[in-house]
Amino acid sequence: MRLADLETPALLLDAPRMRANIARMDAAIARHGVTLRPHLKTAKSVEVARAMTNGWAGGVTVSTLKEADQFFAAGFRDLLYAVGIAPNKLPHAADLIRRGADLTLILDSVAAADAVSAFGRAEGLTLPVLIEIDSDGHRAGVAPDDSATLAAIASSLAEGAELRGVMTHGGGSYDARGAEQLAAHAELERSGAVRAAEALRAAGFLCPVVSVGSTPTALFARDLGGVTEVRTGVYAFQDLVMAGLGVCAVEDIAISVATTVIGHQAERGWLIVDAGWMALSRDRGTQAQDVDQGYGLVAGHDDLIVISANQEHGIVADRHGRPLDLARFPIGTLLRILPNHACATAAQHDRYHVMDEAGEVLHVWPRFGGW
Amino acid sequence: MRLADLETPALLLDAPRMRANIARMDAAIARHGVTLRPHLKTAKSVEVARAMTNGWAGGVTVSTLKEADQFFAAGFRDLLYAVGIAPNKLPHAADLIRRGADLTLILDSVAAADAVSAFGRAEGLTLPVLIEIDSDGHRAGVAPDDSATLAAIASSLAEGAELRGVMTHGGGSYDARGAEQLAAHAELERSGAVRAAEALRAAGFLCPVVSVGSTPTALFARDLGGVTEVRTGVYAFQDLVMAGLGVCAVEDIAISVATTVIGHQAERGWLIVDAGWMALSRDRGTQAQDVDQGYGLVAGHDDLIVISANQEHGIVADRHGRPLDLARFPIGTLLRILPNHACATAAQHDRYHVMDEAGEVLHVWPRFGGW
Repeated sequence: MRLADLETPALLLDAPRMRANIARMDAAIARHGVTLRPHLKTAKSVEVARAMTNGWAGGVTVSTLKEADQFFAAGFRDLLYAVGIAPNKLPHAADLIRRGADLTLILDSVAAADAVSAFGRAEGLTLPVLIEIDSDGHRAGVAPDDSATLAAIASSLAEGAELRGVMTHGGGSYDARGAEQLAAHAELERSGAVRAAEALRAAGFLCPVVSVGSTPTALFARDLGGVTEVRTGVYAFQDLVMAGLGVCAVEDIAISVATTVIGHQAERGWLIVDAGWMALSRDRGTQAQDVDQGYGLVAGHDDLIVISANQEHGIVADRHGRPLDLARFPIGTLLRILPNHACATAAQHDRYHVMDEAGEVLHVWPRFGGW
Repeated sequence: MRLADLETPALLLDAPRMRANIARMDAAIARHGVTLRPHLKTAKSVEVARAMTNGWAGGVTVSTLKEADQFFAAGFRDLLYAVGIAPNKLPHAADLIRRGADLTLILDSVAAADAVSAFGRAEGLTLPVLIEIDSDGHRAGVAPDDSATLAAIASSLAEGAELRGVMTHGGGSYDARGAEQLAAHAELERSGAVRAAEALRAAGFLCPVVSVGSTPTALFARDLGGVTEVRTGVYAFQDLVMAGLGVCAVEDIAISVATTVIGHQAERGWLIVDAGWMALSRDRGTQAQDVDQGYGLVAGHDDLIVISANQEHGIVADRHGRPLDLARFPIGTLLRILPNHACATAAQHDRYHVMDEAGEVLHVWPRFGGW
């Protein structure tokens, strides 16, 4: 099938770019001698997951138990569910474990640890757990130097659960810019997780796993001493937010939304296209960056961005406000929009149209959503 | 099933509130003696569509051909596809028409009219068309007083297509506030569509349909003289944006996202919940309104909003920055988040958990997405 035959809007995946992005991350992590545990929350596709885990013996990371279900059904056994466990999800987690999944949970409080271990005891299960560490004051987690809380959580996991180690996500790295700041943030992430692990070991607890990760820090870490695994997910696709951070080039972005010009706003020199926020997502992640890309950048046109989006309409305009020469973009013209945030844009679609170098659509890979 | 037994996040639909919202709109439109053509882009559910069309003989409005497919399969025959037609969608539209759908397309240029009529001639079909009118300089459409363009489009629809009339969407009404401004905007919408219809009739074209609509204007129009039908969709659910415009009360909002407290940020007095932007959407439609509701308002707690959202994490905090008394919200507490924008939040989910007055979940209604 040719790209021009697609009904728009449609999500495209440039397979050669994706493979290059994956190879770059594999090399960056291998250099440190640690394991890559790809985060599959961006992809939500078995085919993309297989491309991301090719050559790696380690497990994967998920953000929902639906992802755990789907990837376990596809043969992925070692799964880290990297969102603090809610009590109402414990029966679902137990079901996965009983069916043979090596599913690890995370939590950051004595209350949650008590709930997990009580559930494990009642069900005759031992639930594997990592303690979440807040390495950068970003969101959730125990402070790395709060040894009393770490030890209290570890103690309450003694029966019905099993402490496997610690994990952290340096989400604050999304505010970093350029290699120096990203490297500094990676060190914050590493040192916080390692200090917490050492505090637990000093208190007499085993802490074999030290898990860190975010796409910005994973590519820029200079030292991963004491870390056992790195989690990252956006790298396979990359996006405009990552390009704005200096993590990749715009040319590395492997997904885009195909859209068609359906009208002209002649007075203002705008194009109306059939990709609105339903196809692009409402994500405005570049708004706070140096270059605001609106709701997305038109591939191959550095100054054309989606300045406004309704549900099924987008408005494409020059970023500097100059009226476009509309004759260059007649009704029916196909454009590709690069996304601000790959996770959010991909989530609006139920399939990838996988393209080769020549722009032929070779495959359709399903993707799933929901919980 | 009880609400407390749901795995979160989950989309809830309060059926009694929805029925009251539908009755209110039905009464408002009936008062004018025109037809309501409900827009199903918010609902994307056959069950909700049936609730919205109960008692009305008229057709429905859709924003994608996927919606047309799904609702046609469920027995809805009269369908207005209210997004400017792209040439690559004509085969899909033709397929629906051949299968018996009375599908009307819209367009706003001679180029699009030529493409549609040429396609209709080549396929031996007569494709019904409305001309889109730009009643408020909002987005797409022909200016109401541009009789030359209106006549040129109408002429090029002479064969292979059939001009049914005009339509407009007063999307600028989302910038209005309160009954007076909303009524003024409704009049802008009405008068623009009626003037365009009169221009077409004066030029010798039949123009039986004069279709207008947006949820804000539909409830506040004082005169709909010359209009034949009103399109509106959000009214069945309502949302915080509509409440901010004065279109409804917060208490009228019929959908919400159930979420669970999974952690505490004790230092700042915040709750971490398991509804992030994947469950709530990235829509920040109240940001430009008088009351910014963040990523959503916690039902029953006027000052608790979702101040920040990652993919599967939300941060709930006091809107004035006061630290919360975390003991009131232990791990496992169930909260309901009211959405900024019903269309965007519902789009993140594949089902409605339908509740009665007592908060029991009585039914699960599937919803669809995509194109």
